[in-house]
Amino acid sequence: CHFVVEAVQSCSGSKFWSALGCGCVGQAVLSRGAHGGPMTVSVGFAMAVTIAVYVSGGVSGGHINPAVSLAMCVTGRLKWTKLPIYILAQLLGAFVGAAAVFGIYYSDDGKLEVTGPNATAQIFATYPAPYLSLINGFADQVMSTAVLLVAIFAIFDTKNNSVPKGLEPIAVGLLIIVLTCSLGMNSGCAMNPARDLGPRLFTAIAGWGMEVFTAGNNWWWVPIVAPLLGGVLGALIYIIFIEIHHSDPQTGDENEVHTKYELTNMA
Amino acid sequence: CHFVVEAVQSCSGSKFWSALGCGCVGQAVLSRGAHGGPMTVSVGFAMAVTIAVYVSGGVSGGHINPAVSLAMCVTGRLKWTKLPIYILAQLLGAFVGAAAVFGIYYSDDGKLEVTGPNATAQIFATYPAPYLSLINGFADQVMSTAVLLVAIFAIFDTKNNSVPKGLEPIAVGLLIIVLTCSLGMNSGCAMNPARDLGPRLFTAIAGWGMEVFTAGNNWWWVPIVAPLLGGVLGALIYIIFIEIHHSDPQTGDENEVHTKYELTNMA
Amino acid sequence: CHFVVEAVQSCSGSKFWSALGCGCVGQAVLSRGAHGGPMTVSVGFAMAVTIAVYVSGGVSGGHINPAVSLAMCVTGRLKWTKLPIYILAQLLGAFVGAAAVFGIYYSDDGKLEVTGPNATAQIFATYPAPYLSLINGFADQVMSTAVLLVAIFAIFDTKNNSVPKGLEPIAVGLLIIVLTCSLGMNSGCAMNPARDLGPRLFTAIAGWGMEVFTAGNNWWWVPIVAPLLGGVLGALIYIIFIEIHHSDPQTGDENEVHTKYELTNMA
Amino acid sequence: CHFVVEAVQSCSGSKFWSALGCGCVGQAVLSRGAHGGPMTVSVGFAMAVTIAVYVSGGVSGGHINPAVSLAMCVTGRLKWTKLPIYILAQLLGAFVGAAAVFGIYYSDDGKLEVTGPNATAQIFATYPAPYLSLINGFADQVMSTAVLLVAIFAIFDTKNNSVPKGLEPIAVGLLIIVLTCSLGMNSGCAMNPARDLGPRLFTAIAGWGMEVFTAGNNWWWVPIVAPLLGGVLGALIYIIFIEIHHSDPQTGDENEVHTKYELTNMA
Repeated sequence: CHFVVEAVQSCSGSKFWSALGCGCVGQAVLSRGAHGGPMTVSVGFAMAVTIAVYVSGGVSGGHINPAVSLAMCVTGRLKWTKLPIYILAQLLGAFVGAAAVFGIYYSDDGKLEVTGPNATAQIFATYPAPYLSLINGFADQVMSTAVLLVAIFAIFDTKNNSVPKGLEPIAVGLLIIVLTCSLGMNSGCAMNPARDLGPRLFTAIAGWGMEVFTAGNNWWWVPIVAPLLGGVLGALIYIIFIEIHHSDPQTGDENEVHTKYELTNMA
Repeated sequence: CHFVVEAVQSCSGSKFWSALGCGCVGQAVLSRGAHGGPMTVSVGFAMAVTIAVYVSGGVSGGHINPAVSLAMCVTGRLKWTKLPIYILAQLLGAFVGAAAVFGIYYSDDGKLEVTGPNATAQIFATYPAPYLSLINGFADQVMSTAVLLVAIFAIFDTKNNSVPKGLEPIAVGLLIIVLTCSLGMNSGCAMNPARDLGPRLFTAIAGWGMEVFTAGNNWWWVPIVAPLLGGVLGALIYIIFIEIHHSDPQTGDENEVHTKYELTNMA
Repeated sequence: CHFVVEAVQSCSGSKFWSALGCGCVGQAVLSRGAHGGPMTVSVGFAMAVTIAVYVSGGVSGGHINPAVSLAMCVTGRLKWTKLPIYILAQLLGAFVGAAAVFGIYYSDDGKLEVTGPNATAQIFATYPAPYLSLINGFADQVMSTAVLLVAIFAIFDTKNNSVPKGLEPIAVGLLIIVLTCSLGMNSGCAMNPARDLGPRLFTAIAGWGMEVFTAGNNWWWVPIVAPLLGGVLGALIYIIFIEIHHSDPQTGDENEVHTKYELTNMA
Repeated sequence: CHFVVEAVQSCSGSKFWSALGCGCVGQAVLSRGAHGGPMTVSVGFAMAVTIAVYVSGGVSGGHINPAVSLAMCVTGRLKWTKLPIYILAQLLGAFVGAAAVFGIYYSDDGKLEVTGPNATAQIFATYPAPYLSLINGFADQVMSTAVLLVAIFAIFDTKNNSVPKGLEPIAVGLLIIVLTCSLGMNSGCAMNPARDLGPRLFTAIAGWGMEVFTAGNNWWWVPIVAPLLGGVLGALIYIIFIEIHHSDPQTGDENEVHTKYELTNMA
């Protein structure tokens, strides 16, 4: 029962991210810049993540992104048995969120196009820039998601000058700002298989058709496989280069603190 | 007496939001983009909410928005008898705030127009984009306000990794940023009956005339009814899908914590 | 001796605000929009205030603005004997900060003009927009500074869901963002006599000449007198409408909390 | 061993800053404004610093910037023996980060140019604006870095209303926003010898050639020497004008607090 609740929270958070994130891109694209631009997309999208993590009651920010959830399974912080349900919940939430944005912004006087100057499919899922090769796009998503995971682990690592409890979602939002400002040009910096595939499935059904899968040299699988790989890579990098060395330098201080608290408690 | 104080605080907060929020739109509109744009409006408006919540001493951010106040009544967090006075105070504050901005930016060499390229009525109240149907606009405001309420409940929910005490107004501001960046294109994302009707009443009196009610196919009632409905909907969604499940998973931990504190206190 | 230290801190903070604030406007003006615009000026200026408050060790944010210092004297939070020295320190800091920015951005191939398309005096001090009358400008500065003071009192008021200790300067920065985004169009929203007069004196000496005082229908005295008046007004509004009512509703809770702490301490 | 860990963390943090910071400039330059502008560069770069400080586990924010590390050595907060290794780690991290961004954004249909309208070398290292003399550029970097250090010392100074523990990296990010918005026009506000030289070395090797050193009248040494000098200057200014005066006014309060805690512990 507890587990179902977590899945519902994952789904809710994912829906929030999807609806608000797609909405930010939608507003900039559909108003052709009058009501949004690079800055509103970057900041708006980032704050969508922040709010989604608050809504999903986020421990480690992991319940709204399969790449984070998988990385936490691989590193022993999440049970493998929970993973499939989480991913399904995340996918469902992202699908429903995309449908909500479609409902809000739909008008029947425009064709639904995937490419070209009137393309609108990029509101929902990511597509590569014309110049981008598959191999470069794959590397881009591996690196972006690895950076995401190293930073998330640092933000939640209570031994590493971590963010105060309750403010982690805001730090994650600031992280998303810099990632979309610095690594967003190639392919929109998906970094999340569920938030990319869910809305893409929706657009395929809603009228954009199968071109959402074939566009960009069958791009669709890259923002699924690369973030999963990059996420695990980033988690391992953090653990190997930073986390496992914690015990040495800080044990002393920590013991001291613990002792103090214990003294207080036993007083 | 205590109650009168709260009403005064509601009124003050609402006036702040109205004056500063209208000011942000006014600066962008009147300078024709030279001193503002989508980003200053979104961020400025959001920080106006943050400051207004601080000024109104906000518990739950509810005292400056009838949609939030009503949702809190329906869910048993606010006495129904307080609701009418709160709403009146909020309406009065929004009216006075609009008047202040009018005073600051008024110059007598321009006509006061509601529609067209020289329209200025949208500085004070929301109007639908030309393409928007009433039914889509209604759905837009129901959904936006439902999202607002789910997130506000999450931000103030102390059992759900909530924002640290004293920082909730800042988190609410970040929430407003993403809502205006993602769902602001259709009709400016009012989400607050008082902040929309109060300034609209002011413009009707100040010289824009009754067109402020007839414009957009008699749009004026949508940002009143839809947010009230959406707010209640959002509050119920949060309670049904997230809050009522809290007791199961976290009781254990909490009890443990409480016991510890009690032990300390009794030591 | 303690008092000299505070004056030095005031001066340092004021110098920071002046140098960084003038720098933000200078970068936008001198690059003609290539390296800055309304958003960088508003956010940059606001964060300059945040950093200046941290540097000046700010209790109540008062030591970098004569309008705040005077309001604190009038409301009994600051000794009147300290006021003249504080104001002198603030003026000196603002003067030196302006000189630093002048040094960084000076190039000898341009004339120093106060008005017209190549004007640069507005980098240092505020000037009214062409449409603005003196009376409207005066009202603008009274209202802006009154809003500033109400919000500062709310941010630092520990009985009113105040900002956590150590984060007040950031909340003050967010407040400056909304003020410059909403009330900045008329005359740049000085709200600080020292930060306006200090750099204006510098420009008069540095080559812009006495036109910095005569421009805008002898505008220079407005951003001195109006903020002082508005600051006192805002402080009184906060105290009358909000602060004096605190004792009634919250005494109960507070006593309870104090008792708990005392019990812990005495355990 | 502990020391090696710190060097690795320095290197990781520096790599993050370099990759994400260069990425922000790259996205704005390569998309010719379509995916970025002054605001995304300033905010993105600043948040890159924030995340880098979190990753490097930053005490005093010093382990990602030789100018800060040197200032801490001079003021007795860091052992001189650690300095060379730290600087090497920072340089290595910046070099690797630049290589990562190059890999992500490289396409073989463009020439790698240091100057002119198609220049891309400024993505990686700073170059002076055409109008800037060496002496002005040197003064610019001394002053910028001095301001940086004064503010960093204030942010981490627990006796001066400092930022709450765990939030210092965010305050440092806000500081970088104002510095890049106000002092970034002359030469991009490097303020960090490692983050400038590391990527410059990379570009020299990667194809831009030795022009990265000769451009701008042999500019390359300025963002190395000037920040080191400015950093020490800023640290001394903070200590002389602010820090050494702390003991007088606040000892009383502090003792009182300590006594209270001790009483609690001994109760």
